[in-house]
Amino acid sequence: MRLASIRLPGRTVAVLDVPGAEVAVLPDRFADVESVLRAPEHERRALLQDAPKRGERLPRAGLSWAPPVLRPGKILCVALNNSANPERIISGPATPALFLKPSSSLVGHGQAIRLRTDDGRVHPEPELAVVIGKAGTDIAEDAALSHVFGYTVLNDITAPDLRGVDTFHYRAVHPDPDHGNGTRYVDSWVSYPGRYKGADTFAPLGPWVVTADEIPDPHALRITCAHNGRVITDDTTANLRFSVAEVISFASRYLTLEPGDVIGMGTALRPSPEGRGAVQNLDLNRLGGTVTVTVDRIGELSNPVEHR
Amino acid sequence: MRLASIRLPGRTVAVLDVPGAEVAVLPDRFADVESVLRAPEHERRALLQDAPKRGERLPRAGLSWAPPVLRPGKILCVALNNSANPERIISGPATPALFLKPSSSLVGHGQAIRLRTDDGRVHPEPELAVVIGKAGTDIAEDAALSHVFGYTVLNDITAPDLRGVDTFHYRAVHPDPDHGNGTRYVDSWVSYPGRYKGADTFAPLGPWVVTADEIPDPHALRITCAHNGRVITDDTTANLRFSVAEVISFASRYLTLEPGDVIGMGTALRPSPEGRGAVQNLDLNRLGGTVTVTVDRIGELSNPVEHR
Repeated sequence: MRLASIRLPGRTVAVLDVPGAEVAVLPDRFADVESVLRAPEHERRALLQDAPKRGERLPRAGLSWAPPVLRPGKILCVALNNSANPERIISGPATPALFLKPSSSLVGHGQAIRLRTDDGRVHPEPELAVVIGKAGTDIAEDAALSHVFGYTVLNDITAPDLRGVDTFHYRAVHPDPDHGNGTRYVDSWVSYPGRYKGADTFAPLGPWVVTADEIPDPHALRITCAHNGRVITDDTTANLRFSVAEVISFASRYLTLEPGDVIGMGTALRPSPEGRGAVQNLDLNRLGGTVTVTVDRIGELSNPVEHR
Repeated sequence: MRLASIRLPGRTVAVLDVPGAEVAVLPDRFADVESVLRAPEHERRALLQDAPKRGERLPRAGLSWAPPVLRPGKILCVALNNSANPERIISGPATPALFLKPSSSLVGHGQAIRLRTDDGRVHPEPELAVVIGKAGTDIAEDAALSHVFGYTVLNDITAPDLRGVDTFHYRAVHPDPDHGNGTRYVDSWVSYPGRYKGADTFAPLGPWVVTADEIPDPHALRITCAHNGRVITDDTTANLRFSVAEVISFASRYLTLEPGDVIGMGTALRPSPEGRGAVQNLDLNRLGGTVTVTVDRIGELSNPVEHR
């Protein structure tokens, strides 16, 4: 089953993919996937069974796509989660490193990624994303996949020049074990991703959420990133360093997961033969054009770059 | 005017502070401050005028406090935003550095900060927080305060040992200007705050949101942090490096601000004479006890530490 959220004049509605290149519109109180998955289970089942029969039908072509979750409680992303990373890592955690993107950074399929010249370099990061269906804290690894409602596609837009700007080299205040309640300075680096990961339009998401029952193995999916039709990255989710279950279990030990939360599983990296370079080299701010992230069986997320 | 959100059996309601050490309960459709400020202006005015006359009254003592905004679109925080910081900064941005905390990290006044032994050191960070009332992008500095609905108190709980763990020393992939589409490695540090800033209970907020009309100068407020009654930090918001207007204007250039968004203005730092140390030295995980952040004219936010 594939669900999405689309913009109609004056309203945003959840839709279900149906045969015949059409979508069936769910009742108005369901604006997005989160509202569907927060409905009581019997109501959700009835709704999804009835919609193809009763709902208004619209042709799939020409729809205006919203992010499938309009305002998730959180968009949690895993940094450097690709098996190609370890050779680049001099030191780092043995567990998933997490950061957040705000719901205000979301855009739907087809909506523009809007950049300013002074954002510096800006590159796409093609990712499989998980949509949480069932809340949980301290979720055991072997129960983790039962908390997944479905999967979608995330383009984790990143501005590495702004990352450089928002990095501090500083003296952190640490306790001084030799001096009671005294403190000492420890030379440290710290970087803050609010801007370089969280700016408006830096989280294209969608178009579809495909329910988990249709994705028996989320680690066997081809994932590509193309720029103006040329494939730059051609990887597989088999190359994720930490699996979906490992990330859900680890993250939920610290951050309670809630229905509608989105987890970006980390960037696919393997350059395609014809791509002539790494995805980090694809400076959307300089090149403009259209960037497309595709995850097999889940969907194709395409967004034009605009200057503002 | 002071507003809050409180838990009653089976429901969470917005309340208004009224004379006589009581609160007036707003109609049930208003669960928190965000729902009030999203109401149309005429409805909001009528509501706030009527509530003290018509609403159910409850004694202020013994209330169970929720975060005044239950699920803000974002909690945006400014790092290292105190005039005491520059001497510690070897290099860093000349503009506010931003990070996010998730709504799942919020707890209300009186609720426990829940820590595990393996979280390592955990310290409080006493902060003035802004609640956005009016959406905006690219907000001019001289219009910024008109976007503020009110002010509240944030304790930006931070786990510096986890910060250390979630820091990578790595080779970032940069374009190589000498080799066309080639790349080169640049030795870099990057840290990810999802866990060390965003864990459950790491964002005590409240108890009150005080409307902006009652705070003519948000940069003339004493702010303290006490542990088990002993004042550790005794500072003033006059020592903020970037002002409320500067932060709103800068942040909104990148991240659209929405009604209900919370902005943590950065940690008050000046040690009190009797405090015998910096707030970063106050390891709540080792010490337990109760931590209280007070901002003059806004409120006193007190939370016990529990081990889980």
